[in-house]
Amino acid sequence: MALGEFELIDRYFTRPARRAVLGIGDDCALLAPTPGMQLCVSSDMLVEGRHFLATVAPQRLGHKALAVNLSDLAACGAEPLAFTLALALPRADEAFLAGFAEGLFALADRHGIELVGGDTTAGPLNLCITAFGQVPAGTALLRSGARAGDELWVSGTLGDARAALECFRGTLAVDAAAFEQLRRAMECPEPRVALGRRLRGIASSAIDLSDGLLGDLGHVLRRSGVGARLRLDALPRSAVLAALAPPLQQECLLRGGDDYELLFSAPPSRRPDVLAAARDADVPVTCIGLVEAGAALVVVDAAGQPLPVAAGGFDHFRT
Amino acid sequence: MALGEFELIDRYFTRPARRAVLGIGDDCALLAPTPGMQLCVSSDMLVEGRHFLATVAPQRLGHKALAVNLSDLAACGAEPLAFTLALALPRADEAFLAGFAEGLFALADRHGIELVGGDTTAGPLNLCITAFGQVPAGTALLRSGARAGDELWVSGTLGDARAALECFRGTLAVDAAAFEQLRRAMECPEPRVALGRRLRGIASSAIDLSDGLLGDLGHVLRRSGVGARLRLDALPRSAVLAALAPPLQQECLLRGGDDYELLFSAPPSRRPDVLAAARDADVPVTCIGLVEAGAALVVVDAAGQPLPVAAGGFDHFRT
Repeated sequence: MALGEFELIDRYFTRPARRAVLGIGDDCALLAPTPGMQLCVSSDMLVEGRHFLATVAPQRLGHKALAVNLSDLAACGAEPLAFTLALALPRADEAFLAGFAEGLFALADRHGIELVGGDTTAGPLNLCITAFGQVPAGTALLRSGARAGDELWVSGTLGDARAALECFRGTLAVDAAAFEQLRRAMECPEPRVALGRRLRGIASSAIDLSDGLLGDLGHVLRRSGVGARLRLDALPRSAVLAALAPPLQQECLLRGGDDYELLFSAPPSRRPDVLAAARDADVPVTCIGLVEAGAALVVVDAAGQPLPVAAGGFDHFRT
Repeated sequence: MALGEFELIDRYFTRPARRAVLGIGDDCALLAPTPGMQLCVSSDMLVEGRHFLATVAPQRLGHKALAVNLSDLAACGAEPLAFTLALALPRADEAFLAGFAEGLFALADRHGIELVGGDTTAGPLNLCITAFGQVPAGTALLRSGARAGDELWVSGTLGDARAALECFRGTLAVDAAAFEQLRRAMECPEPRVALGRRLRGIASSAIDLSDGLLGDLGHVLRRSGVGARLRLDALPRSAVLAALAPPLQQECLLRGGDDYELLFSAPPSRRPDVLAAARDADVPVTCIGLVEAGAALVVVDAAGQPLPVAAGGFDHFRT
């Protein structure tokens, strides 16, 4: 007999609540907010063919579904607390569920957070996680705080996830080891939670890179009422990406999407603090440009010459 | 040109935050919990063909998507605060979105709550709302508090939504006015938020009826470690339902699903308080049976004779 909805929840998703007042199993979960803290909430929906391919291992999908939400919390500088999971499944496939839960809880456990509730239903595969975190009141990193003169920074490297997508699409061929590296970047992004928390009080703005550098930087610039100058040669990239043909390499770096790195700004005077935060979080960071007055986003080459680059990030209804 | 993802959010879903510290437009929403309150969280996912039919008006779908979450908050006795919406759409259909937003915000406004964040993506139609409410610490109504000797109560009437489904399936024919009433029950459930809040400190347990009376009562009985005796003739029903053939009528009442009424228990000594709460909330309530020692769920007829009724509610992977 097929696994029922409530057995499915019991078998794969119910674990005892440790931090929450009440976890899975009632009409609502109950959380006890810490006095003086503000609650950060992020919700992301993942759809097959859009956010992941049918070829992804269930463990990696479980990881990624939570990682993209933790990445939003990281961009606010939040300490993750808990999450809910709503899941539409074509059928109750135990091998899929066991793997999915394994990847999901492995990442949750590394961040000390718990699944407190959610929903399961039959339907086309769809994963919706809402994640909760907290920050001391008034300290959340926002998109709106970038100021002319600030330096622009990015964590990790950019573009590998997009290059992986090109491999899956058949428009790029690399050797097996390189493909595994790119694929891992696409399927197993590491949310920069530790870095985000350490950047509170240091960074003037932050956003996580999900729709591509130019598009996400555009959100920051519009919200902050400023422009920016990006140095293409400064953008951090893996050796695999650096070996790609320049047009594709540039496309992956600037418009890649799915990077889940932090893009943030800080005054030049805070450079030592930025570097200390990155060291403490054990995440490389790279200065990639400057915030400027005005509203223009200019990308320059190694000689400082502006490149003809159209702005715009990933749009789910235009791609 | 098709409406883009960010224009779609701006046009239909972005309104200024009033209660939240920060609403739509950053990586996270920010909520400031009230000192001494616990946060209630509920997440529901609605899939076409499972939770609504393709024939539903967008306004009603917007209403229902939020209503089912508010119903969970009501079952905890919570004051609703805010919600997130994640939406997968086959395409950016403006007529659909305008109607959906209208129904959604009409209900949100009646409860003084706001949309603080979410996600939009292309994909098979899927609606996931996560709703937040608050209760004074320790006062949430739970499924686990029913005690032998308590009376069992239900709000409103039962079974109309299921009867509507039978009409859509072509297994039941009623006149046009009756059909409109049944259809309204299915498409526009009214979350019993005011009643739930007034039942704090009075009801010993509560749950909202989404999977059918027997199934949901079963959850309460298992969590509370008790049994119950239900009187079939006492179950509140509309005149339309009361006119249906007894077998279908009984099926709709006991296993209907989609009722979104509150099922709750209270000691007989609190009967005056239950009735006062119902009067204050302007919602009819009916005593439908008793909580008993043991683990059995017995349904009896008007003469007190047990009926041969199999337990079990709606299961998304077995229906």
